[in-house]
Amino acid sequence: MNPVLFSLIIGLLGLAYVAYTTQQVLGRDQGNADMQRIGKAIQEGATAFLYAEYRVLAIFVAVVAVILALALNWQTALSFIVGALLSALAGNIGMNIAVRSNLRTAAAAQQSLNDGLRVAFGSGSVMGMSVVSLSLIGISALVLLFEGTGVSLEQALQYVTGFGFGASSIALFARVGGGIYTKAADVGADLVGKVEQGIPEDDPRNPAVIADNVGDNVGDVAGMGADLFESYSGSIIAAGALSFAAIAAGELTAATVTLPFLVAAVGIIAAVLGTFLVRAEEGASQEDLLGVLRRAIYGASVLVLVGVAILVLTNPAIGWDLFTVVVIGLVAGNLIGYSTEHFTSYTEKPTQGIAKAAETGPATLLIEGLAVGMVSTAAPAIIVMVAVIGAFYFGGLYGVALAAVGMLSTLGITLATDAYGPVADNAGGIAEMAHLPSGVRDRTDALDSLGNTTAATGKGFAIGSAVLTALALMAAYAQAAGIETLNLLNPIMLGGLLLGAMLPYLFAALTMTAVGKSAMAMVEEARRQFREIPGLMEGENDPDYRTCVEISTQAALREMVLPGVLAVVVPVAVGFILGAEALAGLLIGATASGFMLAVMMANAGGAWDNAKKWIETGVMGGKGSANHKAAVVGDTVGDPFKDTSGPALNILIKLMSIVALVFAPLFGAGLLGF
Amino acid sequence: MNPVLFSLIIGLLGLAYVAYTTQQVLGRDQGNADMQRIGKAIQEGATAFLYAEYRVLAIFVAVVAVILALALNWQTALSFIVGALLSALAGNIGMNIAVRSNLRTAAAAQQSLNDGLRVAFGSGSVMGMSVVSLSLIGISALVLLFEGTGVSLEQALQYVTGFGFGASSIALFARVGGGIYTKAADVGADLVGKVEQGIPEDDPRNPAVIADNVGDNVGDVAGMGADLFESYSGSIIAAGALSFAAIAAGELTAATVTLPFLVAAVGIIAAVLGTFLVRAEEGASQEDLLGVLRRAIYGASVLVLVGVAILVLTNPAIGWDLFTVVVIGLVAGNLIGYSTEHFTSYTEKPTQGIAKAAETGPATLLIEGLAVGMVSTAAPAIIVMVAVIGAFYFGGLYGVALAAVGMLSTLGITLATDAYGPVADNAGGIAEMAHLPSGVRDRTDALDSLGNTTAATGKGFAIGSAVLTALALMAAYAQAAGIETLNLLNPIMLGGLLLGAMLPYLFAALTMTAVGKSAMAMVEEARRQFREIPGLMEGENDPDYRTCVEISTQAALREMVLPGVLAVVVPVAVGFILGAEALAGLLIGATASGFMLAVMMANAGGAWDNAKKWIETGVMGGKGSANHKAAVVGDTVGDPFKDTSGPALNILIKLMSIVALVFAPLFGAGLLGF
Repeated sequence: MNPVLFSLIIGLLGLAYVAYTTQQVLGRDQGNADMQRIGKAIQEGATAFLYAEYRVLAIFVAVVAVILALALNWQTALSFIVGALLSALAGNIGMNIAVRSNLRTAAAAQQSLNDGLRVAFGSGSVMGMSVVSLSLIGISALVLLFEGTGVSLEQALQYVTGFGFGASSIALFARVGGGIYTKAADVGADLVGKVEQGIPEDDPRNPAVIADNVGDNVGDVAGMGADLFESYSGSIIAAGALSFAAIAAGELTAATVTLPFLVAAVGIIAAVLGTFLVRAEEGASQEDLLGVLRRAIYGASVLVLVGVAILVLTNPAIGWDLFTVVVIGLVAGNLIGYSTEHFTSYTEKPTQGIAKAAETGPATLLIEGLAVGMVSTAAPAIIVMVAVIGAFYFGGLYGVALAAVGMLSTLGITLATDAYGPVADNAGGIAEMAHLPSGVRDRTDALDSLGNTTAATGKGFAIGSAVLTALALMAAYAQAAGIETLNLLNPIMLGGLLLGAMLPYLFAALTMTAVGKSAMAMVEEARRQFREIPGLMEGENDPDYRTCVEISTQAALREMVLPGVLAVVVPVAVGFILGAEALAGLLIGATASGFMLAVMMANAGGAWDNAKKWIETGVMGGKGSANHKAAVVGDTVGDPFKDTSGPALNILIKLMSIVALVFAPLFGAGLLGF
Repeated sequence: MNPVLFSLIIGLLGLAYVAYTTQQVLGRDQGNADMQRIGKAIQEGATAFLYAEYRVLAIFVAVVAVILALALNWQTALSFIVGALLSALAGNIGMNIAVRSNLRTAAAAQQSLNDGLRVAFGSGSVMGMSVVSLSLIGISALVLLFEGTGVSLEQALQYVTGFGFGASSIALFARVGGGIYTKAADVGADLVGKVEQGIPEDDPRNPAVIADNVGDNVGDVAGMGADLFESYSGSIIAAGALSFAAIAAGELTAATVTLPFLVAAVGIIAAVLGTFLVRAEEGASQEDLLGVLRRAIYGASVLVLVGVAILVLTNPAIGWDLFTVVVIGLVAGNLIGYSTEHFTSYTEKPTQGIAKAAETGPATLLIEGLAVGMVSTAAPAIIVMVAVIGAFYFGGLYGVALAAVGMLSTLGITLATDAYGPVADNAGGIAEMAHLPSGVRDRTDALDSLGNTTAATGKGFAIGSAVLTALALMAAYAQAAGIETLNLLNPIMLGGLLLGAMLPYLFAALTMTAVGKSAMAMVEEARRQFREIPGLMEGENDPDYRTCVEISTQAALREMVLPGVLAVVVPVAVGFILGAEALAGLLIGATASGFMLAVMMANAGGAWDNAKKWIETGVMGGKGSANHKAAVVGDTVGDPFKDTSGPALNILIKLMSIVALVFAPLFGAGLLGF
């Protein structure tokens, strides 16, 4: 069978799994009327955000599509639209199930821990499988469509770069906009609720509480999903594009063009099978629950290897070298996850060291956290370095892209463990707001705490795969632009590299200050409601959740414009003005510098968060102590680090690479004639 | 006349200026007995640090010299020793005059502001002129010596790379060790004195107060001096080394080999003349004083251009293109200084914005400061990018190195404005400890405040010149290693680049935690003295300043080992194991990433410091308010940023480049056979 057709079919099977699991989750008990009322408010808020985002997105997509059709061709424009639509659809499915399974998870936790885990994880796996299935379906269908119009597979794959660009555009909106939204709501809710009014977290009297809960879904479900949809699509496209030069040079066989599709298809099957391994004993500790999720991920990884081995055995033209490349990608992804966990988990020394620094005040806690974040860049950098060199040794530049495909092949399940976190977090919030018994809250807390760990690991994985994907896209870009050697002794390239190394800092700064500004808008609205709505504090009148959601939404969309424009316009401008080589330098500089900054910010943020949580377990004076206050300062600084700016850098480096790849045919020596 | 001999003579004339100015400064009134007692304690502490450092250094220099003699040749080993000795000598001269002019500045400030300025600036110019004179003398004398043994000028310059390595080694000890020392003493003194005992800054009862004052000299005089000694030497050596390939290719004339020497010599003359422009009116505002220093620097810059124009006119073989390159370097240096001032001065919006963020607590102040630091990377990155591209356009790779020489040509006077700061700072401390009238303290405060601005500008200049020098050294390395194109599509290079981009983070983290550990040792000793020395708090007994100095010294030397080893061993290991190309990638990655991180840390630190100072002028509630407390947290986080880790990155990127250049002849394809 045509391998592309095969992966299209597997993608459709993946969608069938999505439909089945959605049914299962939606069939669960929705709990009491209180829970349903709260759940409904979160659903409405999330939908409001999505639709506001879609309105802006539709204009953006339409404009870019027209530009692409005029500057390049209709095929690229069509691919762009399909990529944007499918990524948005995957995000929509993921958000919809997430905001429906939070209350069901809370209800299921009334039965048992295992029930709660099954519902929350089921929701996560709907998200995970939607992302991989829709991505593979979209790419495969477009390739088949273009081949049907009579163009070569190589040309078809060139057109499909538009799909990656479309996916990147959605990722920009979802990850950057979502990141600003979620932290603005979180900081706003905390400042007015906890600090000014002295009411607990997740208190229904807080006007910003629903926006905060919506934010968890917007940032961690839709944002993370779109981010990885982009990596997943990008790595497949880059691998396909890179195979042709190697085949022409006689370094690879023709079987390698469609191998990325097959590896992705095998990964989908493995991920579906892996989800059935998620099952916990009642009374399971956090350690046990983590073991359950790990077993599922490792199980899926082993299945991928078995599947790829079968591919090699049935088609020896693929060869064991490329099997090794897939192994390298899978192992590297898991190692980065491990290293992230080491630096951000409060059972480990680094995070405990940060907490201990609280004894001499917030300043030393901050210094220690920044130092831990910086040190934590070492392991991922070395892992990716070894992976890049190893993948190249066994498969050339194509190997680098294939390693990214391998790393992301089990994404259906790794993303499930990740998207499960916000559902558990929301379930906890609903349990609190609906005054469920403390035993239930204990169970949702156990699920939530596990979610924090998997979220940190997931962030490391997202960064690692983004870097590998960006490098593969950069290589594909260089090939498409006809660059044979990227000579760094050429100062135009060196200049591009310096400029590129600076962009992540600028991007991070813009997103960080965006959170600050948006949070202020939220604080003012929440203050206004406490002031103007009579009986709000006494619980006699409900706050106006909707306006808070609206404010967070508008602020996020407004603040996203500048960094977004930067990410698209700078590479195009550099390509046209300084030329194709300077742009290559820019991409490499941005990827290397953005990688380190993203890891530093994500891990410092995660470690501060967990240092605070560790103190809250009762050590070092526990909640309310001076140590805890210092840790809260660290956590607040860490919030935009780990949930906004850090993850936004993944988008920056991939988006710039894909923009370069799409526009590569148009760049020349540059206007300045270098 | 032989241009190298000419620059040797100019260097000697520069030394004569140093001797004359030293005489002038030492002839000044030393104030009353109290002042002399305090001044003496600071002198003794500084000397103690220097000698402790020299003991460790002597062993290090001896070991490396033997390795160089065995692995390469005696000439490189000799150059290494001379470079280390002369840099140490320059530091020694600078420290000695600084710790003798602090009390004389305080005494002169009793007469008038202008007198105080003349003494403090005189001390700074002794430091500045020592650095440039000794560097130029050393390089010129070595070149003449080697030529005397019958080798070619090209070979002689290759040997002299050892001089750069020697200078870098001292810079490592002085900048990194000094940076750890100064902040450990500062934080230790503040925590025990201001926080625990509630006594004011610079109170003579504080056992750590002398260590703190010594630290200003160790970090900002000796450290900054050695840093720039390294850049100055490195840029001349790199330009000389890069000229030969261009001459062989017919792109440059033979006159260009010695042009860097001539530009440096012209710069020394210009700097000497410029120092005579420093003269203030009584009652001059800070703005006026800043204007005085600016006039001197700009005057010297114009003189350099006149001198270089004369060189071109008398020897048309040099050509106006290279004149343009010198202009580019000078302008770029000044622009970077400007941009640093904009982001760190409290009369400007960015720093005021940080202060305003204090209203919502320390966390938002920290976020805003980090964002300002990140945004502030944009201007320096673009300036250096344009400078690199422009210099290359007019002079090839040689042009990049010559631009660095041009940027640093007025170093004699820019470093003077920089090294003047700690002297004024110390003078203020002495005025406080010796209970001089408040009018005197007002004058020293005016001088000190100016010193803070020039220190920030100086840091920007140091980073910018370090980056340009590192790039030039990297290019010289690539040439020496026989690399014609640095192909970034070669994943071994890409891997090296990723590793390199990570190293600055690791280095910064190590130096930051080193400050924390050393400060703790200081805190314990100061606490012990308050506990065990009877009548200390009542002023009846003197504290044991010496033990505090000793502790800071030992801690700094101990904590310096790991980052130091890292900076030397990693490039050598990568060169031998992964090969010459991977090492080139590593150098580029480290330079680009280290550049941004250094600017971010230095500017965020400077801005936090000044945000606090702005609040202390009485705005936003002034000293003691909640806003001020939040700003103190920012200042404390910023201390190791701006005075330890940020500046240490200058050393890292240059040291790695010079190590690569020195060992270049030994690297091949790498053990792994790539």
